[in-house]
Amino acid sequence: MKAPAIPDTATLDRFARIVGERYALRDEADMQPYLVEPREKYFGKAAMVLRPGSVEEISRIMALANETRTAIVPQGGNTGLVGAQIPFERGDEIVLSLGRLNRIVKVDAEGNAMTVEAGCTLAAIREAADAADRLFPLSMGSEGSCQIGGNIATNAGGVAVLAHGPARDQVLGLQVVLADGRVWDGLRALRKDNTGYDLKQLFIGSEGTLGVITAAVLKLQPKPRARETAFVGVASPEAAIRLLHRALDQFGRGVTSFELMSRLGLDFVLRHLPGSRDPLQGSWPWYVLLETSSGDEAQTLRPRVEALLADAMAAGEAEDAALAASAAQANALWRMRASLSEVQKQEGGSIKHDVSVPIAAIPVFMKEAAKLVEEIVPGARLVPFGHLGDGNIHYNISQPVGADKKAFLARWEEVSAAVHGLVARLGGSISAEHGIGRMKKDLLAGVKSAVEMEMMRAIKRTLDPNGILNPGKVLQR
Amino acid sequence: MKAPAIPDTATLDRFARIVGERYALRDEADMQPYLVEPREKYFGKAAMVLRPGSVEEISRIMALANETRTAIVPQGGNTGLVGAQIPFERGDEIVLSLGRLNRIVKVDAEGNAMTVEAGCTLAAIREAADAADRLFPLSMGSEGSCQIGGNIATNAGGVAVLAHGPARDQVLGLQVVLADGRVWDGLRALRKDNTGYDLKQLFIGSEGTLGVITAAVLKLQPKPRARETAFVGVASPEAAIRLLHRALDQFGRGVTSFELMSRLGLDFVLRHLPGSRDPLQGSWPWYVLLETSSGDEAQTLRPRVEALLADAMAAGEAEDAALAASAAQANALWRMRASLSEVQKQEGGSIKHDVSVPIAAIPVFMKEAAKLVEEIVPGARLVPFGHLGDGNIHYNISQPVGADKKAFLARWEEVSAAVHGLVARLGGSISAEHGIGRMKKDLLAGVKSAVEMEMMRAIKRTLDPNGILNPGKVLQR
Repeated sequence: MKAPAIPDTATLDRFARIVGERYALRDEADMQPYLVEPREKYFGKAAMVLRPGSVEEISRIMALANETRTAIVPQGGNTGLVGAQIPFERGDEIVLSLGRLNRIVKVDAEGNAMTVEAGCTLAAIREAADAADRLFPLSMGSEGSCQIGGNIATNAGGVAVLAHGPARDQVLGLQVVLADGRVWDGLRALRKDNTGYDLKQLFIGSEGTLGVITAAVLKLQPKPRARETAFVGVASPEAAIRLLHRALDQFGRGVTSFELMSRLGLDFVLRHLPGSRDPLQGSWPWYVLLETSSGDEAQTLRPRVEALLADAMAAGEAEDAALAASAAQANALWRMRASLSEVQKQEGGSIKHDVSVPIAAIPVFMKEAAKLVEEIVPGARLVPFGHLGDGNIHYNISQPVGADKKAFLARWEEVSAAVHGLVARLGGSISAEHGIGRMKKDLLAGVKSAVEMEMMRAIKRTLDPNGILNPGKVLQR
Repeated sequence: MKAPAIPDTATLDRFARIVGERYALRDEADMQPYLVEPREKYFGKAAMVLRPGSVEEISRIMALANETRTAIVPQGGNTGLVGAQIPFERGDEIVLSLGRLNRIVKVDAEGNAMTVEAGCTLAAIREAADAADRLFPLSMGSEGSCQIGGNIATNAGGVAVLAHGPARDQVLGLQVVLADGRVWDGLRALRKDNTGYDLKQLFIGSEGTLGVITAAVLKLQPKPRARETAFVGVASPEAAIRLLHRALDQFGRGVTSFELMSRLGLDFVLRHLPGSRDPLQGSWPWYVLLETSSGDEAQTLRPRVEALLADAMAAGEAEDAALAASAAQANALWRMRASLSEVQKQEGGSIKHDVSVPIAAIPVFMKEAAKLVEEIVPGARLVPFGHLGDGNIHYNISQPVGADKKAFLARWEEVSAAVHGLVARLGGSISAEHGIGRMKKDLLAGVKSAVEMEMMRAIKRTLDPNGILNPGKVLQR
C-alpha cells in the first residue's frame, strides 16, 4: 500500500468544485472544529474539510481521492473517543464531514424500520421513532451531537446494549460509498435475507477504513409501555453482579439497563452537576442504575420491581434503593449517570479506559486494577463506571488532588499498559465499545493473533487497495 | 480462479492418512448418506468423504486441499434445503463432515455463554443450555439432526427469529479453519469487543465458501419463567398482521413466535400426522401459532394473553382461539407446526419457496402469488406457512390432486420465476433463511447489483484464492 500523496492546490480545487467553495473549508479557523476531538487528546491537521450535500458528491469525492491517492478521513458528529475521526498531524488528509446528509428519509412504523441519512444525530432519530410510537434503543451520553453514520461505523454501544445490543444489531441495511467511488446500495428493510455474504457487517465497526457509510435502514422496537428506574446502593461489585442475575432471572430481557458507578463518581456528580442531589440517605461504596421496561402497563411492572428490590435487600445484594416516582425523577437519575465523564473534567486530568471482561471477572478486575494504579500513581482517584450488564467498565482515573494535570496525563501509556495487561490476563477486550482509531492502533497486534491481523489487512487491501480511506486508523500504515 | 483438480488415488491416500482409513469413506454405499439432501432435489458425487476428529486434522486437510487444489464441501447435519452441503455430480470433490466434532466444551451460566464444537446438534445444545437454566433460542424443525456449524454457516432462522434473531445473532465467537489450513481462533465470550473488523460476520452465512467453522461461543438467554401458546383462527393475512401488531404493542419482545399456516396446511397435518386433532371447533381460512414468553410467573402472563385474545376477537382480528392448558398441549401445537414440511410429502410433489417481503406487503403477496401459480399450474394446492412476524413465508405449493409428480416438479423453475419476480417487485428476498447454495446461485446476480456481486467475488478471492472451498456454491464458478 503506497502512502497517499499530499494534495496540491490544483487537486484541492478539483475537490472544492465537487461540493462548491462554500462547503470546501481551507481556512485554519473554519477547519478547527473538525480537527480537535472531545477529549482534547488529538489535534489534527487537514488540507481541507469537505461538507458534501449528497451521495453523488461523496461518490465523486472518493473517485477523485482514489485517482489522486488523497487520504480521506470520514467524520460524523466528531464525538468519537479514540481519534478515528481526526486526521493525523501531517496536514495531507481531507476530512469528509457527513453532517449535511441529515434527512430522516422514511419511518415505517408498521414495518418497524426507519431509513436515515448518515448525518442524522442519534437524538433526532430517537425522537422520530418516538413520534411514530416506536423505540430506537441505541442511546448514549453524546446522542445530541453524535451522528448515526459514526455510530454505525464505530459499532457504538451505550446504555441499552444489555437488552438491545450495540449499533450493529440495529442495522437492517446500509448504503456505502466505496474507496473508488462506487456506491453500494444495500438499503434493505427486510428482517431476514440470506442471499449471499452479509457485506454490511464489514463496514459496521470498521471506523471509516473500508467505506463511507452514507445512509442506513434501522430496526425499530415496540415502545415500552412501562419503565421503572431505580438507584440502588450496593456494597461491592460482587453484590451488584448478584443483583444483576436476580433481575435477569425475573425480568429477562426486560432489564434494559444495568449501570454501575462508584461512590467517588457520585461525589463528583453531586459536586459539579447543578441541581443534582443524592438519591439515597446513606452512603454506599457502589451504586447501580437499574432500568426495567415492559410492554405492559405500569401497574404490573412497578410492584414487581419493588418486590425485586425488597428481595435483593433481604438477600444482602442491595443496601438501599430509590425507585423513581416520575419520569422527571428517572430523567434526573439518568442525567447523573450521563454526566460522569463531564464532571470528571472538573476534577483535573483523567486517564480513561474502555475495557470489557467476562462479567464474573469484574470483581477481580476492580481489585487488581486498583492495586496496579496505586503503585504507578499513588493517590490517583478511581472513578470506574459503566455497563456492568455487558461486562464493560469505563475504568477512568482522575488525577490525585492537587497534582499537576500534564504530569499526570504523561503517565497515560504506563497506566494503560498495566490496566490492559490485566484485562488480557482476564480474557477481556481493550476496547469494548469505543473502537481502535488511532489511540489503540499500536496495541492491536498485541491482542490479536497473526492470522487475525493478516485477515484484517487482506480485507483492507481488497476494499481499499490504494489505502486512502482513513489510513493508519485501526491498522497501522 | 482456476478450477480445482480431480484428485488421484495417491492424493486421496494422503487425505485418508490425516483422519485414518476408518474415517475416510470411499465406498459408494458408505458415502451415500452424505450425497443426498433431505428434499431429494440434489444427488451429488464425491471422490471421498472425510470425517475428521479434531481441528488439527481439519487444518491439515485444508492445507493439503489448498496444495493439491482439491475442492472441499463442508457438511454438518445435511439438513440444508438449497444443496450447499451436497457436492456437484462430477465426483471430483471431497465432503468434509463435521459430525465427529460434537463436544459441548463449556456452559458458562453466569456469563450466559456456551462453547461448542461445530458438529453438536442444535437439540443437544438447547438441552445443555436448558440443563443450566438458560435458553438457547435458535429452534427449527430439523433441530434433532442439524448441526450448529451448519446453522451458523447458513445463518439459519427458524421459529424464534422474531424475538431473538437468526443464528448470526446468537454467536459471540468462532473458530474457523481457513482455505489454506490456517486456524483462526476467534472463540471470544465477550458481549462487547470493538477491536478491529468483526471477522466472524464474514463466515456466518457464507455457506462454507470462505472457511470451515469448527467451533463457536454462543450467547445464552435467561430462561423464560412462563410461556403461553395459543392457536388462533383468523380470516385473512391482513387480520393476522393486525393481531401481530396488537401482540407486539402489548408484549413487545415477549412475543417469541408468530407463525402462520393456511387451512389447507392444517388439513394436511390432520390427515397425515398421527394423533393430531383440530385445536378449534370451527374452520377458518388461516391460523396463527402465537407464543408469548415472560421472565415473570405464569399467573400474570396467562390472564394478559387471555385479555389479548379477547380484545383481538372483539376487534375482528381473531375468529377463535385455543390457549394451551399445559406444556403437553403446547408441544402438540408446535408438533403440528413442525410437521408441515413432512406432511406435504404425503400429498405428492411440492415446489417450495423461502421468501420474505416487508410485513405490510404479505397480503398483496399472497393474493398475487396465488393468481400467478394458478395460471401456470391450474389446480395446484397452496400451502404457504411460516414466520409471519419476520415477513418470511415458505410459499409451498403441492401438486394438483392426482397429478403426475415428476411432471409437476418439472415446472419448478417456471413457477419459481413467477413467484420470485413478484417478490422482487415487492422489495423482498428470494432466500429469507435457507441461503443460496446451488439452488439459487444462478438467480443471485439477478437480485444483486453489479457492485455487490463484485464485492462478494473480491471477498471470496481474498479468503479462498484457489477457489477450493465449496466452489460453485453461492457464487458461480
